[in-house]
Amino acid sequence: MKIGVIGGGQLGRMLALAGTPLGMDFAFLDPAPDACAAALGEHIRADYSDQDHLRQLADEVDLVTFEFESVPAETVAFLSQFVPVFPSAQALRIARDRWFEKTMFKDLGIPTPEFADIQSQVDLDAAAARIGLPAVMKTRTLGYDGKGQKVLRSQADVEGAFAELGSVPCILEGFVPFTGEVSLIAVRARNGETRFYPLVHNTHESGILRLSIASTDHPLQALAEDYVGRVLDKLDYVGVLAFEFFEVDGGLKANEIAPRVHNSGHWTIEGSESSQFENHLRAVAGLPLGSTAKVGESAMLNFIGKVPAVEQVLQIDDCHLHHYGKAFKAGRKVGHATLRCSDAATLRARIADVETLIKA
Amino acid sequence: MKIGVIGGGQLGRMLALAGTPLGMDFAFLDPAPDACAAALGEHIRADYSDQDHLRQLADEVDLVTFEFESVPAETVAFLSQFVPVFPSAQALRIARDRWFEKTMFKDLGIPTPEFADIQSQVDLDAAAARIGLPAVMKTRTLGYDGKGQKVLRSQADVEGAFAELGSVPCILEGFVPFTGEVSLIAVRARNGETRFYPLVHNTHESGILRLSIASTDHPLQALAEDYVGRVLDKLDYVGVLAFEFFEVDGGLKANEIAPRVHNSGHWTIEGSESSQFENHLRAVAGLPLGSTAKVGESAMLNFIGKVPAVEQVLQIDDCHLHHYGKAFKAGRKVGHATLRCSDAATLRARIADVETLIKA
Repeated sequence: MKIGVIGGGQLGRMLALAGTPLGMDFAFLDPAPDACAAALGEHIRADYSDQDHLRQLADEVDLVTFEFESVPAETVAFLSQFVPVFPSAQALRIARDRWFEKTMFKDLGIPTPEFADIQSQVDLDAAAARIGLPAVMKTRTLGYDGKGQKVLRSQADVEGAFAELGSVPCILEGFVPFTGEVSLIAVRARNGETRFYPLVHNTHESGILRLSIASTDHPLQALAEDYVGRVLDKLDYVGVLAFEFFEVDGGLKANEIAPRVHNSGHWTIEGSESSQFENHLRAVAGLPLGSTAKVGESAMLNFIGKVPAVEQVLQIDDCHLHHYGKAFKAGRKVGHATLRCSDAATLRARIADVETLIKA
Repeated sequence: MKIGVIGGGQLGRMLALAGTPLGMDFAFLDPAPDACAAALGEHIRADYSDQDHLRQLADEVDLVTFEFESVPAETVAFLSQFVPVFPSAQALRIARDRWFEKTMFKDLGIPTPEFADIQSQVDLDAAAARIGLPAVMKTRTLGYDGKGQKVLRSQADVEGAFAELGSVPCILEGFVPFTGEVSLIAVRARNGETRFYPLVHNTHESGILRLSIASTDHPLQALAEDYVGRVLDKLDYVGVLAFEFFEVDGGLKANEIAPRVHNSGHWTIEGSESSQFENHLRAVAGLPLGSTAKVGESAMLNFIGKVPAVEQVLQIDDCHLHHYGKAFKAGRKVGHATLRCSDAATLRARIADVETLIKA
C-alpha cells in the first residue's frame, strides 16, 4: 500500500518510520527542497495548490493523509475526486478554523472558554467589553506554536489589535485561569472503533510545547474520553486526532483540536504498545487498531532550535533520540527525546538530565 | 552522519529505520534493482566488486558497514583505503570462512564440534573415518540458511560429496547431539565496551530460522558471554556480532558467528531497550552503547515465502509486524513478527496465534 502525505516534515517522517514495517510506501508532497521526510519516500516537490502534482500524487497512492491542518480546502476537495482522503475535508475544515472548532465544542456540550468571532476592530471592541480582559485574540486559521495570537491585558492592548494580527478573521477567547494543560490523543478507525492514549500533561514556553508527560490513571481520563469521543463521532473521523484541554477547577475546558498526529503524542513511539503514527496509519488504511496501553513511565522533551550533542543524549539511560534531520534554527522543532522508565521517580530524574542538556 | 551499507536487504532496511531517528542518512550498495532498503536511503546499484561505485560510496559516507559477511575481501580492502569500515576486514575474513572461524574457537578455548579442513574427496574420506558419521559437510564460505551443506549419514553419502558441494573448500563437522540451539547477540563499541542481550532460543526448519524466544535468567548466559567476549576482544571487534551455539549436556558448543545484525536479534526492536540495529549503529559511529535489557517477554517468528494477510497479523494483541517489502518467493525471508508480552504464558499463547496464521 502506498500512502500519500501532504507535508514532508517531521510528522511525515515519523509516519514513514512507523508505516514502512507495515509494508507501506510513502510519497510526500511538500514544496520545501529540504523536506526532512523525503529521506523515507518519494518527494513530490510542489506547492499545495499545484493541481498537476496533486493529480500525480493521487494517481500514485492508495490514499492521502495530512501532516498539518492548514491545507487549503481546495486541495482537499481536488484530491478527494481521485483518491480516499483521511481525515475528511469536513474534519479539516472545522479543525483549521478556530470559530468553527469552538462552535462545534459548544454545540456538543463540551465546555470551552467564552469566545467571539472578530471580523473588525468594532467586533473586537464589543467582544472585549462583553468577555472582559485579560483575553486572548487568535487568528481563526493558520496559527501554530503560539504564532498568530496576542494576549490582551488592558484596553491599550485592544486598540489596533485587529490590524496588528493582519486584519484577518480572528476570535477572542476569554482568559482561562488554568492549573494545567493536558491533551488526549485518540484514534478512530474506518469502522468507528475508537481508542484513547492516556492523558498527557503538557508544558509550553513561549507558545511552544517543551515537555509532555504521560499520566497514569488520571482522574479526568474518562471525562476527556467522553468529550473527545463526541467530536470523533460528530466528524465521523478517521485517523489520529489530538485534543488539547485546559485543566480548570478540577474539570476540563476545550482549547483546540489537531486533526493529525501531534507533538504531545510523540512519546507513544517508545512509551506505548502502538505509537500514534502506527495507529494513524492503521486507521486510515482500514486496518485493525493497535493497543494504546503505556509501556513504562514515559515523557517527551522537545529539542527547539538545536539538538544537543548526540553522544550526550545517548549517554542518558532510558533516553531515545529522535533527530528530525532538519537545519537548526531558533524556535524550530528539530528533534525530541522520549524517556521510558520503570517508575515515576526515575522518570523525574531523567527529565532533569535531559533538561540540563537542553539548557547547556 | 551518513552511513554506507554493503547490501540493501531487510537488515539494511532495519538499520536505516533505527538510524534515521539518530540523525543518520544511509546509502546502500546493492546490485539488485529491487533492494528493499532502497526505500530508506540512496541506492547505489552496482556489483560488490565495482570499484568506481565503491569509490563513490566511500566518498559520500562517513563510514561503511555490512549487511552480510560474504563480501569479497578485495571489496573491504578497497573501501578501507578511503573510509573507516566496521567490522574490520580481519573480522570479516574469519567470520566468512568456517575453517578460520572454528580454528579461532579452538585457539580461544571455546568448545566446538570436531572439524576438519576438506580440500578434496581424499581429505573427506580421511576426515569421515577420523570424525565418524553422522557428520555435516559445509562449504567454508558462502553458506547460509542451510544452503551449502549436506548431512553425511552413511558411507554412501560420503562418496562423491566433495563434487556434490561444488568441489570447493569445505569443512567436515562432527554431528552434535544437541538439545537446543541458542544465540547470543553482542555489541562492542570502538572503545572496547561490550554489552550482551539475553540468550535467545532458536528453532530452525529446513535450515531456516523460524522462531526465536528471548530467555530470562538463562543458566548459560554467563558462560556464553565469556565465550563471545573472547572472540570480540580477539578480533578487536566493533559493532554487533551474533554467536550461535549448540546446547549440549548442559554446556555450549560454538556453531558459528555472524559479524553483523542477525535474524535471531530481530525481537530486540520492540523487546529490548535499544535494538540490535540501533546498537550496531551506535557502536560503529563511536557513540555510547544503549541498554540491552529486555522489555517484557519477547519472541520473533519469521515469515518465510509470504507475509500473512496484514489485517490478520495486526489483529493479534502484542504483535508487531515487520514487512520487508520484498517480492514473495518460496524459502525467502519476507517479514517477521515480534511479540512483546507481559508474561511467559501470554507469550506462548500469542506464538501459537501467529503460528496458526503462518500455517493457514
